[in-house]
Amino acid sequence: MTAETTAIGVDWGTSSFRAFRFAADGEMLEGRRAQAGILAIDAGEFEDAFEELIGDWLDAAPDVPVVLSGMIGSRQGWLETPYLPCPAAVDDIAGALVPLTLARGRVIRLAPGLSVRADDGIPDVMRGEEVQILGAVDLIGSATATVCLPGTHSKWARVESRRVTSFSTHMTGEVFDVLRRHSILGRGIEHAAWDEEAFLEGVTRSGAEGGLLHHLFGVRAAGLFGDLAPEGAGAFLSGLVIGHEIRAAAPVDTVYLVGEEELVRLYREALRVLGHQGEAVAAHAAACGLFLIADSLGRGGGR
Amino acid sequence: MTAETTAIGVDWGTSSFRAFRFAADGEMLEGRRAQAGILAIDAGEFEDAFEELIGDWLDAAPDVPVVLSGMIGSRQGWLETPYLPCPAAVDDIAGALVPLTLARGRVIRLAPGLSVRADDGIPDVMRGEEVQILGAVDLIGSATATVCLPGTHSKWARVESRRVTSFSTHMTGEVFDVLRRHSILGRGIEHAAWDEEAFLEGVTRSGAEGGLLHHLFGVRAAGLFGDLAPEGAGAFLSGLVIGHEIRAAAPVDTVYLVGEEELVRLYREALRVLGHQGEAVAAHAAACGLFLIADSLGRGGGR
Repeated sequence: MTAETTAIGVDWGTSSFRAFRFAADGEMLEGRRAQAGILAIDAGEFEDAFEELIGDWLDAAPDVPVVLSGMIGSRQGWLETPYLPCPAAVDDIAGALVPLTLARGRVIRLAPGLSVRADDGIPDVMRGEEVQILGAVDLIGSATATVCLPGTHSKWARVESRRVTSFSTHMTGEVFDVLRRHSILGRGIEHAAWDEEAFLEGVTRSGAEGGLLHHLFGVRAAGLFGDLAPEGAGAFLSGLVIGHEIRAAAPVDTVYLVGEEELVRLYREALRVLGHQGEAVAAHAAACGLFLIADSLGRGGGR
Repeated sequence: MTAETTAIGVDWGTSSFRAFRFAADGEMLEGRRAQAGILAIDAGEFEDAFEELIGDWLDAAPDVPVVLSGMIGSRQGWLETPYLPCPAAVDDIAGALVPLTLARGRVIRLAPGLSVRADDGIPDVMRGEEVQILGAVDLIGSATATVCLPGTHSKWARVESRRVTSFSTHMTGEVFDVLRRHSILGRGIEHAAWDEEAFLEGVTRSGAEGGLLHHLFGVRAAGLFGDLAPEGAGAFLSGLVIGHEIRAAAPVDTVYLVGEEELVRLYREALRVLGHQGEAVAAHAAACGLFLIADSLGRGGGR
């Protein structure tokens, strides 16, 4: 290690583990990735896995803050941390980190999740995405923004004055997957195929009369009439649910997208079709957010 | 048989077989039901099954019209019949019946389905429900009505001057079932339980901001916070999707409901919560519709 490590950050989610070590100015000195998501690890085995994955970093930088975010702080993770109600900024998260002492005596800190309640009292939650969102806002250099993390459970967040003021989760990816695998729609879908035009048609269709439950049946009916080939049906369905998500989220300004490259591309296309603007954020939003929290902690924000 | 049979009608769907024989005035002389839906019968075995189920009726009434409706006329059924475009009345259906000659020489007639196209060209289809809808309209004695058949694929039809002028299918029942069995929501649902209050809360929630894909995640988030018990989560989810269906269908007058008693009760409740009026139609709407078609055929409507 040439530059000195001043902080270690870990984004430990359901299906993946990503660790970063940072220099004092926030520069990422090294990143490490593993398919060691929390679902792949038995309860009681988290510390062993953690030591195996970045024990050498802990040895080499014995005094720097170590911050973990993501589903590692859930009931199914290492230690359940609370949900911090919105609005929440980096300093609020740093102030709510939950310490955990390793067998070697080292203290590491797990981030809380965020929660928000709709006007009718129904809650929404996130764990890990808040770190990416606050990192993204720092990367784009704007204190106010709409940030979207598309995926299995897409997150849409509103950030004002560098605080997450509200957010909503949409089960878009999971609904798409469950429908194509387990509903009658799957029979008309050639799963390996992709048809970009059909995707865009699905996005457009999301604005027609009748709502999502009706539009879903249209995938089948259009297939029966030969209007939609099996090679395009999966893409049409994808466009339909993504279109419904975007219409429901109703963005009022540029949507900053954080996520896997191809999915971000699809959301940018869908946003364009619906008259909105989407911009991809550099992929290291999680790393940036983790550094900001560790840095806040170092400046006393978390004391 | 005391009164003379003048027509035989069969509603042969995916999961059930229902046959009726009628007197000249439309009175149902006898009904017969079997779990012999088309999915339970191998291709090539339909005639044997048909003879077994009502061969004695055919023997006893050798000259009366025999009309079949439902999925029996689909690609997976006995003989594929076309879809008749809306608007369509009883006489139109009678005129589009597809004859099929049995081994015994008897001619029976399969009803077409109905189709409609949205403004953007996406089609919708039904097979069998059109007979129930036209039967229901006759039973309620109104030439103009909104008719809803709730279920796996709910149908909403607009009838004007005794013609089905438009309709829409909503995958409500199937989406509910697939989500509770195959999505993450299933983990928070006690499947055997029902909570009427939670159902009504789900209906109300359907009108909140954020759209269906967001509201679905609320089932999980409310469960995490203990706001929604597993005993109520299934009912809440049911109310949510039914509420979204009704809001999308946006009825402008009384909704006449045809279907299984408990489901009709739930839709009436949901309609009431959303400020609409629902009325149950007597369960023999299919029989009534089949008689009307056979009667039209007898009067030359189908010649």
